[in-house]
Amino acid sequence: MNDFFAQFPAGAKCTRCKQPPDIRLRSHHVIYCSSCFLHYFHTAVKRAMRKFGITPEQPVLVAVSGGKDSLALWAALHELGYHTRGLHISLGIDGFSDASIGSIRRFAEPRQLPWANYSLKEVLGCTLPEIRRRTRRKMCSVCGTLKRQLINRLTIQEGFSAIAMGHNLDDEAGRLLGNMVRHRSEYFERQYPYLPSTHPRLPSKFKPLYRLEALEILTYCKLNRIEPVAARCEFARGATSHSFKQALDLLEEAMPGTKRDFLYTYLENRQPPQPESPYGTCRFCGEPCYADVCSVCNLLDRQAGPPNL
Amino acid sequence: MNDFFAQFPAGAKCTRCKQPPDIRLRSHHVIYCSSCFLHYFHTAVKRAMRKFGITPEQPVLVAVSGGKDSLALWAALHELGYHTRGLHISLGIDGFSDASIGSIRRFAEPRQLPWANYSLKEVLGCTLPEIRRRTRRKMCSVCGTLKRQLINRLTIQEGFSAIAMGHNLDDEAGRLLGNMVRHRSEYFERQYPYLPSTHPRLPSKFKPLYRLEALEILTYCKLNRIEPVAARCEFARGATSHSFKQALDLLEEAMPGTKRDFLYTYLENRQPPQPESPYGTCRFCGEPCYADVCSVCNLLDRQAGPPNL
Repeated sequence: MNDFFAQFPAGAKCTRCKQPPDIRLRSHHVIYCSSCFLHYFHTAVKRAMRKFGITPEQPVLVAVSGGKDSLALWAALHELGYHTRGLHISLGIDGFSDASIGSIRRFAEPRQLPWANYSLKEVLGCTLPEIRRRTRRKMCSVCGTLKRQLINRLTIQEGFSAIAMGHNLDDEAGRLLGNMVRHRSEYFERQYPYLPSTHPRLPSKFKPLYRLEALEILTYCKLNRIEPVAARCEFARGATSHSFKQALDLLEEAMPGTKRDFLYTYLENRQPPQPESPYGTCRFCGEPCYADVCSVCNLLDRQAGPPNL
Repeated sequence: MNDFFAQFPAGAKCTRCKQPPDIRLRSHHVIYCSSCFLHYFHTAVKRAMRKFGITPEQPVLVAVSGGKDSLALWAALHELGYHTRGLHISLGIDGFSDASIGSIRRFAEPRQLPWANYSLKEVLGCTLPEIRRRTRRKMCSVCGTLKRQLINRLTIQEGFSAIAMGHNLDDEAGRLLGNMVRHRSEYFERQYPYLPSTHPRLPSKFKPLYRLEALEILTYCKLNRIEPVAARCEFARGATSHSFKQALDLLEEAMPGTKRDFLYTYLENRQPPQPESPYGTCRFCGEPCYADVCSVCNLLDRQAGPPNL
């Protein structure tokens, strides 16, 4: 199963408008026609944006990988009247990176949406596969560390103070489950769909798709003829985050709505994170960080500073 | 996969005694010969019993369903020198109940272990299938409510102040996961491998197998030629507890040791539950309970009291 399109008996009616339905959302106990599904999807994004306090008057920078989540996010924000600009960081992974850029181009061009493309090679001096040869750390964690810092820097460089990220309900619920199963309570504090800025050089981050499941997003892409990158990152195989999402899928299958209740109840019972200033800057690259040396300089084993960042 | 027996290349050695191995325990990163596996299993039970403060001088009543867990528990306690007595409650389920009694008899007779058999029909006046016809509640919950009270009453009646239960690591970790995913923090307090008595008519309960996985217990049964009841309770199909255990199995498969770490870290970071007296007795049956009417009388819709309990 990779979307929510379903067959219905003659006479079945869309829960909202009573027209013939196309889509079944088990976790909501509803069936929708395509048009009501789009309404549902846009309402979820609108509701999230209202929670974050971001109105259509404010231009929005969208982090775009070329996958289903970021393209659906970009499409929905555009549809809702936001002025958007895409930000892509190309990792230099054979096949995957070119395919990602192709998907973004095919999405953005007909819609006349502007986007900026930066490559890891240009900005850091090396590609992800080159970094892989130097470190024994798991690549999803390495890639996350690099992208986190670069997204911060490039957002500010692009003239924005906030950036929209494509994390969906499955991502957020899976991460929460992983932190719970490993009793990593120190990470709970930092998990929230809206993370305010903690430093003039650190943008706020918000996740307008946190109310939408991965399969709802795929359904939205199909309805809008969005073609996300089909190739999968070769480095992501065996990522533990997949296992936590699979475990939640298993629970969702047996008890529809579990995933959603799990995340929402957690979010409703906690306070949004309080801004907390990082206490310094990296002595090599000058980026804001909590320690003496930032995680990227640590990763790249920078000895002398500042490098060509 | 339903046990931990494995094939090994020539020259492989038991992690503990260096003899040829039979069994692989992935979550412990060890391979064992049968004899060292038994040593490992008995040590886990011994360690639990030490934690509960129960020495081999104290006779132990064991709740016995006829399944793998309760028979393995009984066998291990007997092996460790405890004087044991079995307590079985027959539910009156066609096929399943007779098969359970057969399994217990085949286990207990050759070992000359005493046991008491009570039937729901004798004690409550009706069988589980008869109760099923009267209620729309889920049967696993109904059965749990009934057995909980009957085990309390019968343990005291048999002259014991504590009873050993067969819950294993999978049961405990699955229950913890279920409570976490549903954010039922009020249930966390009551989940612990040793629950002290809170009333002279409520026995303490302890779970000596809480350090052992379901598949380790099956492996132990096979090594000891224990034949647990093969039939499954027809009412247990679709029980949500299964889904939480399956979700943990999926995580365990991807990250061996996850299940164990999840439960142990939780137990290490909390205090054992404090005895808390129930504030009264049921006005129909006189059993200790928190409310005016106990859950069994509620379930059986008792109007006049006290009945023939």
